[in-house]
Amino acid sequence: MDTAKLLADLGALLGADKVSRDPARLAARHRDTWVLSLWRKMRDKQFLPPACVVTLKSTEDAAKLLQYAAGNKVPVVPFGAGSGVCGGILAEPEVVVADLTELNRLLWVDEVSLTARVEAGMLGAEYERALRERGFSMGHFPQSIDCSSVGGWVATRAAGQFSTKYGCVEDMLLAVRAVLPDGTIVETKAAPRASAGPDLKQIFLGSEGTLGIVTELTYRIHPVPEATQLRSFSFPSMHAGLEAIRLVMRGGWRPAVLRLYDDVEAARHFGGHVDEGEALLVVVSEGARTMVAAEGDAVEQICEAAGGRSRGRAPAQKWLKERNVVPSFETFLEQGIIVDTIEVAALWGRIGELYDAVLEEMRKLPELIVVSGHSSHSYPQGTNIYFSFAAGGDDLEATYARCWEAAMKATLDHDGTISHHHGIGRVRAPWLPAELGSSHLLLRLLKRAIDPHGIMNPGVMLEKVC
Amino acid sequence: MDTAKLLADLGALLGADKVSRDPARLAARHRDTWVLSLWRKMRDKQFLPPACVVTLKSTEDAAKLLQYAAGNKVPVVPFGAGSGVCGGILAEPEVVVADLTELNRLLWVDEVSLTARVEAGMLGAEYERALRERGFSMGHFPQSIDCSSVGGWVATRAAGQFSTKYGCVEDMLLAVRAVLPDGTIVETKAAPRASAGPDLKQIFLGSEGTLGIVTELTYRIHPVPEATQLRSFSFPSMHAGLEAIRLVMRGGWRPAVLRLYDDVEAARHFGGHVDEGEALLVVVSEGARTMVAAEGDAVEQICEAAGGRSRGRAPAQKWLKERNVVPSFETFLEQGIIVDTIEVAALWGRIGELYDAVLEEMRKLPELIVVSGHSSHSYPQGTNIYFSFAAGGDDLEATYARCWEAAMKATLDHDGTISHHHGIGRVRAPWLPAELGSSHLLLRLLKRAIDPHGIMNPGVMLEKVC
Repeated sequence: MDTAKLLADLGALLGADKVSRDPARLAARHRDTWVLSLWRKMRDKQFLPPACVVTLKSTEDAAKLLQYAAGNKVPVVPFGAGSGVCGGILAEPEVVVADLTELNRLLWVDEVSLTARVEAGMLGAEYERALRERGFSMGHFPQSIDCSSVGGWVATRAAGQFSTKYGCVEDMLLAVRAVLPDGTIVETKAAPRASAGPDLKQIFLGSEGTLGIVTELTYRIHPVPEATQLRSFSFPSMHAGLEAIRLVMRGGWRPAVLRLYDDVEAARHFGGHVDEGEALLVVVSEGARTMVAAEGDAVEQICEAAGGRSRGRAPAQKWLKERNVVPSFETFLEQGIIVDTIEVAALWGRIGELYDAVLEEMRKLPELIVVSGHSSHSYPQGTNIYFSFAAGGDDLEATYARCWEAAMKATLDHDGTISHHHGIGRVRAPWLPAELGSSHLLLRLLKRAIDPHGIMNPGVMLEKVC
Repeated sequence: MDTAKLLADLGALLGADKVSRDPARLAARHRDTWVLSLWRKMRDKQFLPPACVVTLKSTEDAAKLLQYAAGNKVPVVPFGAGSGVCGGILAEPEVVVADLTELNRLLWVDEVSLTARVEAGMLGAEYERALRERGFSMGHFPQSIDCSSVGGWVATRAAGQFSTKYGCVEDMLLAVRAVLPDGTIVETKAAPRASAGPDLKQIFLGSEGTLGIVTELTYRIHPVPEATQLRSFSFPSMHAGLEAIRLVMRGGWRPAVLRLYDDVEAARHFGGHVDEGEALLVVVSEGARTMVAAEGDAVEQICEAAGGRSRGRAPAQKWLKERNVVPSFETFLEQGIIVDTIEVAALWGRIGELYDAVLEEMRKLPELIVVSGHSSHSYPQGTNIYFSFAAGGDDLEATYARCWEAAMKATLDHDGTISHHHGIGRVRAPWLPAELGSSHLLLRLLKRAIDPHGIMNPGVMLEKVC
């Protein structure tokens, strides 16, 4: 479509002030924080901007935009806060970016029913701060909380650092308002639980902007906990630590945080608190005072029986303080090193082998500098491993592809899931068919039914033309 | 389609022994336990049988059947165990009943990852018994456990009596194998948690046989709890008891059972343990010994502060013993009385008014004999009310319709959900559009995408022709 006509049409439809071709704005809204997008920008020194950025001020704005886009087959990419790390946002030249950053109000808090209604573009940290001022918390603390949006959490199926007690975003979302690709506004009901057909809000949890635009959310909240207890334990190996976590979960205990760093990461982050080769487990218990006390005693007993040694509060305090501080991708790229993280998950019966296999396969790559992992989200049935790697070589993009290939293949070979909480985007799209197997068909049917013209975030998750 | 040809085709496809026109079998498989189906049978003394019953022995049998049915536009009604109470199964003359009762094996138990794989037609009580023999439990105890199937639980989005601790069926289902209406077999992955697009197994949770046939399930299991503690409390009113439950949930406690009977039901079931007009709360705490002790103390403190009076273990023991004993619908129908239950739910901010309104509206009906309610499934955000009613009059079917109309309307007027865990079937179908509002469109899109010819369980949930 002709860009001048597109701008004129959208200006007439939404107001000219909401449609921008300002180069700084186009640059700030056309991609997420995927390291490969950063690297390409640094390497190529230029980018092809999207057609325009449309600032949404209401659900109705989103409806008008999508109705127009569907009618004119214009691709639309929703932009929440751009903190994703999988290439879920990468707006190509013909794309209209639907910018949600100004749809960012906390609409209300229901202190009796423990729910809150918030617009999708509000930043996570601002939402949590507003709840805290009233004595409540969402319980959702992704590392990105300062730079991710409450709607992006739904789109990517996010998980926060305290998920073992409070659940992941699918456990927190009570209702959603969204605009379908044809401009229809849909809203699901806020019930504590229902048996009235399939749970339709699930369509949007993990949709990554491919099935419409989420504009408002009703989230569960909870009172700020009465007590918090910090502990840590060192283990002779990652495997010993994983076994301890398995037994804690099996016992029915749900510490907010059970975070196990392998030897490489334990030495890096908790050098003074572990011996060489040891793994380190950080435990945070939260809730009613007597529950926390019982849980703390049980966790200590289980960890010690599993070969753990108490390392006191200090490592947990250090983690709490530094948990959202991460070096930027750019710092490494400037030195010719590409770094990234790959979070996967598996059942307890497979996770130890999976951890070993991913490390082994990645360490076979000559360009690899270092790879390590930690477990940060546990369940009675299994846990995740969050791998971090750094690699070099003459062609960083090729190196990067080989690292991912090794990790994804080893994960799939050990019955793991290729993403625990970052999502698919572009980086994992090649492995999604293997991940979903025969159920991939259901995703394709869903996409075709809801977005028949394929206008929503094309190139993410599924092939471009459905 | 000509019945003789249908029988010949199916016999050739699946084996003649799997296709039955035996009148007793047709009668036993053509409907669920909906009271109106029972009443019509008693009143009319005859029924129009479905075309045939096909016994499925494998997922592949189901695939063959549905591929044939889709190609020939033959309606198919899956039959699990027939315990539903909403008219979700009512096979009309041209229908093929897909009988899952012989697809009933426990395939394996993974004692490390706490999962089990089971075929959809296994009876709940048999599944639980097999787990108990190994020291495990599913934690799912619907009143129907002796006569409902593990696959029916998924189809209807079931909830069990211990849901407050262990969750409802959607919290227990890890993976599903199902056959789509065109005969395609799909299987979702068993991961502890994933962010790989929308959670596709959700499509089947609450699908009530309208989106395919669920054939195998991987469920979470847990070790049999170490300790159990029983308590009970009387409250001056239902409202006071509801407030106590709200505060228990808000405090982060999760007793397996928090079951509050209103004055009518408390007097009926716990006559010696309550004073006139009092409500009665039964509490069961389960889990690790120290957790149960802390929880028991906290619950007692909260209940007493909220005006409750401890009534000891006896009422809880009585409930545990008698919990699955219910008088049959037929006993009442023979006396010219129609009885039924209506379970709804709402957020805490609305549930008290909803309870009052449903009672008030139903008590306005001249044919009503009695209506009462209890809360049996609680969440930090709200709870359900399970209403029971009995009514008479010259035209029981008309009486019944008026009772439901009153309850559904009062529920919707108070922002409640029309079903907490029994599902939609035929009895609630007229109110589903109002329940889902704008999101009803998503259900229609899903149905059209997955079952374009509308062969699966027509007449349930959605209008017959999509």
